[in-house]
Amino acid sequence: MARILESYALDSWRRASSGFAEVASAVDGAPVARVSSQGLDFGSMVRHARQVGGPALRELTFHDRADILRGLAGALNDAKEELYRLAADTGATRRDNLIDIDGGIGTLFAYASRGRRELPSERFVVEGEVEPLSRSGAFVGVHILSPLHGVAVHVNAFNFPCWGMLEKLAPAILAGMPVITKPATATAYVAEAAMRILLGTKLLPPGALQFACGSLGDTLDHLTGQDVLSFTGSLETSEALRNHPVIGRNAVRFIAERDSLNAAILGPDAGPGTPEFDLFVREVVREMTVKAGQKCTAIRRVLVPDLHEAAVLEALRAALGRIALGDPRLPETRMGALVSRAQREAVRARVAELATEAEIVFGDPGRAKGAGIDPERGAFMGPVLLRCGRPGEAVKVHVVEAFGPVATVMPYGCLEEAVALAARGEGSLVASLFTYDPTAAVTVALGLAPFHGRVLVVDRDCAADSTGHGSPLPGLVHGGPGRAGGGEELGGLRGVFHYMQRTALQGSPARLAGLTRSWIRGAPAPATDRHPFRLGYDELRVGDTIETGSRVVSLDDIEHFARFTGDTFYAHMDEAAAAANPFFPGRVAHGYLILSFAAGLFVDPPPGPVLANYGLDSLRFLKPVSPGDAIRVRLTVKRKTAARKPEYGEVRWDAEVFNQDGDSVARYDLLTMNAREGEPVEP
Amino acid sequence: MARILESYALDSWRRASSGFAEVASAVDGAPVARVSSQGLDFGSMVRHARQVGGPALRELTFHDRADILRGLAGALNDAKEELYRLAADTGATRRDNLIDIDGGIGTLFAYASRGRRELPSERFVVEGEVEPLSRSGAFVGVHILSPLHGVAVHVNAFNFPCWGMLEKLAPAILAGMPVITKPATATAYVAEAAMRILLGTKLLPPGALQFACGSLGDTLDHLTGQDVLSFTGSLETSEALRNHPVIGRNAVRFIAERDSLNAAILGPDAGPGTPEFDLFVREVVREMTVKAGQKCTAIRRVLVPDLHEAAVLEALRAALGRIALGDPRLPETRMGALVSRAQREAVRARVAELATEAEIVFGDPGRAKGAGIDPERGAFMGPVLLRCGRPGEAVKVHVVEAFGPVATVMPYGCLEEAVALAARGEGSLVASLFTYDPTAAVTVALGLAPFHGRVLVVDRDCAADSTGHGSPLPGLVHGGPGRAGGGEELGGLRGVFHYMQRTALQGSPARLAGLTRSWIRGAPAPATDRHPFRLGYDELRVGDTIETGSRVVSLDDIEHFARFTGDTFYAHMDEAAAAANPFFPGRVAHGYLILSFAAGLFVDPPPGPVLANYGLDSLRFLKPVSPGDAIRVRLTVKRKTAARKPEYGEVRWDAEVFNQDGDSVARYDLLTMNAREGEPVEP
Repeated sequence: MARILESYALDSWRRASSGFAEVASAVDGAPVARVSSQGLDFGSMVRHARQVGGPALRELTFHDRADILRGLAGALNDAKEELYRLAADTGATRRDNLIDIDGGIGTLFAYASRGRRELPSERFVVEGEVEPLSRSGAFVGVHILSPLHGVAVHVNAFNFPCWGMLEKLAPAILAGMPVITKPATATAYVAEAAMRILLGTKLLPPGALQFACGSLGDTLDHLTGQDVLSFTGSLETSEALRNHPVIGRNAVRFIAERDSLNAAILGPDAGPGTPEFDLFVREVVREMTVKAGQKCTAIRRVLVPDLHEAAVLEALRAALGRIALGDPRLPETRMGALVSRAQREAVRARVAELATEAEIVFGDPGRAKGAGIDPERGAFMGPVLLRCGRPGEAVKVHVVEAFGPVATVMPYGCLEEAVALAARGEGSLVASLFTYDPTAAVTVALGLAPFHGRVLVVDRDCAADSTGHGSPLPGLVHGGPGRAGGGEELGGLRGVFHYMQRTALQGSPARLAGLTRSWIRGAPAPATDRHPFRLGYDELRVGDTIETGSRVVSLDDIEHFARFTGDTFYAHMDEAAAAANPFFPGRVAHGYLILSFAAGLFVDPPPGPVLANYGLDSLRFLKPVSPGDAIRVRLTVKRKTAARKPEYGEVRWDAEVFNQDGDSVARYDLLTMNAREGEPVEP
Repeated sequence: MARILESYALDSWRRASSGFAEVASAVDGAPVARVSSQGLDFGSMVRHARQVGGPALRELTFHDRADILRGLAGALNDAKEELYRLAADTGATRRDNLIDIDGGIGTLFAYASRGRRELPSERFVVEGEVEPLSRSGAFVGVHILSPLHGVAVHVNAFNFPCWGMLEKLAPAILAGMPVITKPATATAYVAEAAMRILLGTKLLPPGALQFACGSLGDTLDHLTGQDVLSFTGSLETSEALRNHPVIGRNAVRFIAERDSLNAAILGPDAGPGTPEFDLFVREVVREMTVKAGQKCTAIRRVLVPDLHEAAVLEALRAALGRIALGDPRLPETRMGALVSRAQREAVRARVAELATEAEIVFGDPGRAKGAGIDPERGAFMGPVLLRCGRPGEAVKVHVVEAFGPVATVMPYGCLEEAVALAARGEGSLVASLFTYDPTAAVTVALGLAPFHGRVLVVDRDCAADSTGHGSPLPGLVHGGPGRAGGGEELGGLRGVFHYMQRTALQGSPARLAGLTRSWIRGAPAPATDRHPFRLGYDELRVGDTIETGSRVVSLDDIEHFARFTGDTFYAHMDEAAAAANPFFPGRVAHGYLILSFAAGLFVDPPPGPVLANYGLDSLRFLKPVSPGDAIRVRLTVKRKTAARKPEYGEVRWDAEVFNQDGDSVARYDLLTMNAREGEPVEP
């Protein structure tokens, strides 16, 4: 009996009473679910996200939101067998579920980690360096990113009901934006089950996540320039969304990921018998059969050197012949069904288009045989390989995407031709190259780059670890130019920043330091009553400073340091040779001597809240220190960030070393790990 | 006699013979120029850019392109008096020219400097850190940015014929993309003159720059996903361009900067008598009158606390009353003409719209008086100040942009109300705040940020140096969300990257090191025959390595170093206290001692091509070094970058310090300045 799926709006589950679309099992055509969003008030959903969800999420820090993502990922992970079970009706095998369900959970975990590790315990991000805007230093600029005040509307594709929803949701929530997510109808029952698990955790604040199961109604009419519309699917649907008058007029941010005729290229060196040849064949077969080829990143165009074409065709035919098509629940099944019979019809129609330019060299789009298959009721289709002998003159093989287990082999002459053929796809998500020739790798990979969001080079050295042609990864951008939609997702924090507004702040150093909670050179640097190393993380304030006394660096010090460390570089040891160096007036102190003496000047020795100096960033030696010069240090709290363990905090100090004339001789950021609590003040 | 302006297409100047638009002087209505692009073959212009200009530009490195920009800027600077002279007919005063002409030249110079300083001597940019993609380290990812293979089409606004053209052109050329630029007809004669100076330098390769003086014809029909369309102007024209079917279907990158109802906010603390009050009044008057208010960044909404409204109105009226309207050529003139009588009519119509919600409290849009003004022939209009008493209930004052010397004063109650009113503009380019109250600054500036591309906080500390509310700067992003178009320009390298494709590369460390010419941990690190410090910059190859011998760090060394430097931190000196520290097993060596000994191990003392260690990046201490541990160093050439002076190069070394167990104890990037030539090998 088909289950009626529900939407989640205004913090409760809602069931439609009419307007249902019926969803059938991909395996046997039995009714699985009924989908309708009729009765939802989309305007009030948008307002609820904006007025309730957004403010609640923005109250949290990035670290708080990252912790929520971790909790969501854990809950899904605990319940994933249930999702696997449901997903079988979409045609997905166990191997497919690893990509969709485990891959989605992994993406949530990855953003949880990045949020903790790469974002501050704040509500905005300072991006890049301070820009000096005047000679005096009294007027400066700095960029921040803060969450948009709208809603992220996510329109997902049918092929990855779990991953597709989560890879959009995780960056948005981490950014601080509430989400309305819409599953594709054909696989909405998997998405709905995942959503029930997510919402069941009660980790998300009210209004942060809504689920429009069915059509989006008039949602787009309610969007503004503070909103984001992110879409994965066909070029046609993408255009329909983008051309909605509100999207352009209000400059709603629009991210699209759509058709892509991804290429895999075999290098001329990678003939039969090489590891790369075998890796190539295995990867093409995998990409054709995983998710029954219903992946926007799947290999559609198989570019092989003329010389190796026959061997590739033979190897692919043999390997494809071993693929067991069948009921995805059966353990022996290697490839399951397409999502629906309608989808199978669409793929067959596209294959017919391709066949006007290419010949079918393996498979039959009209037939499907295997264990547990009823070809009339189930949406099964075996892999179909085509071959286009003159790809330079062909058109459809480069632009018609048959979204199923279909790929076309094309021969090429020289590497430049291979690159040009790949570019005929007019922009793709990913291309891969199989070669062990470094020169070929440079020519092809850099040639492909402008036309692709991702380029993978596979060889014997990385094959065992390679995540494969078809796998978008949380840390790498996903998206491609042109036909692929021109959008970008994931890519680590890049994917988070799409949900944030970049703003240049201008003002005095004091003001911008106050706004960004990051000390800026020129802002007040008040000396603390006690040495700042005696103050706990919680007590330290941005700007707290110690100005040290000074110390003369003598020639004896330099010679002693040279002998002690073994660093007898001539600029420290030989007056005539040093003076001949274009940067030094004569013998100078070692940079490391300056750093070491600086530490000697500012360190407060007894045990206290400063636990360790764990690093140093952006050190620049600005002026040589000559024998007889006297150095002193200003050390100022630049930024504080909560550490992973609650009892510590990371403190970034701005350190500047001056000589007796007040000139800067060195600048750097010093990093310390501090205990949260300082020391009691003695009475 | 009106001059016929020419276009520059396929590397030669072209004169139309029909279809002319007549351009009249803003000052006296006399004919100035005739503009037509009839006869241009736009398809061949696009192809020429793509097939000739793009490849030629991409052959050059960023440094080469930066040097071209510097040359272009210098040529314009030498000839700017000629541009000033022409600009008078657009209504521009000398002060206006400083913004448009000198500002444009400054932007070219700024991108020339950034290209040299912040970009490598390469044809692509490595962005961000290497992403580990497997536990073993055998599979990694890295992002690069490479120039798109298309053309940048720039559609400029009439108000800044020079700056507007150059601020778009500089980042595109630096990125490596050829440009077709289209001036606004009303001021095309200034743009054409600037273009003749640029092209006269012959610094740009063929096809790199074309000038479509007149309409763009069918240019858009020829664009693909490798092209960029960047527009500044009205919301209506922006929508017409964006809705062209090719733009969406081919995912042509589209950058828009359009209407913006920018706000200036007076803080509650900044009452009459405070420096901020005076600064506010001066800035509002300046923004209303510079370029006769024809600036997309001009202040349109003047938000003042209820309490100070009367004082502000009085001060603004008095200051506006002192503005001398007149012929821009006269030295006493403070404000010139609008660009055309048609523009004046448009502004008057918008003022009439605003007047349905606000009252005019200064000026008369229907009259213009001043030295050298013929009100019938010239396009003069004096400043008009309106006042809207209930801005929370009004609509038009927040969305109707009168693109002339027009602003509306609005009172507000609390700071949150001021922020909410500013946001009613539905996204603006810039907002400014005048306050000396740090708390108010935080509330307002962070409240404004999501709705603005730039937020300026003015106070007595930065006023003398402030570049002002209306000035976009090369180092800060220019653009705003929503009504302002959602585009982003400038912002330093961010503006360059809009013309480049971001691509994630995946593969083995060796392969990616080869592709990016940056050494990656795990890639081969071959020891050189001679010490790498003996090899000149030109001889050194990425990956060249020295593996040093090892050195024991004794307790004596630690104590000696502590006494010598004065750094007697307890973790180095007191076994019991050190062992109580959560990060240390007992007494440990100073981080700076490790660094110093490491240098002692790898430095090769005699004079040679390594001239100086000028800094160090991303140092992390990974594991404590205990007394008795033996350390050794691997030092590998990570990246090479041409220095400003041709005889030097900058070398970034990857340094890793290991203990006797092979564990990493420290990692950092070491930066040296090297001579180009090494030493002759002794026979």
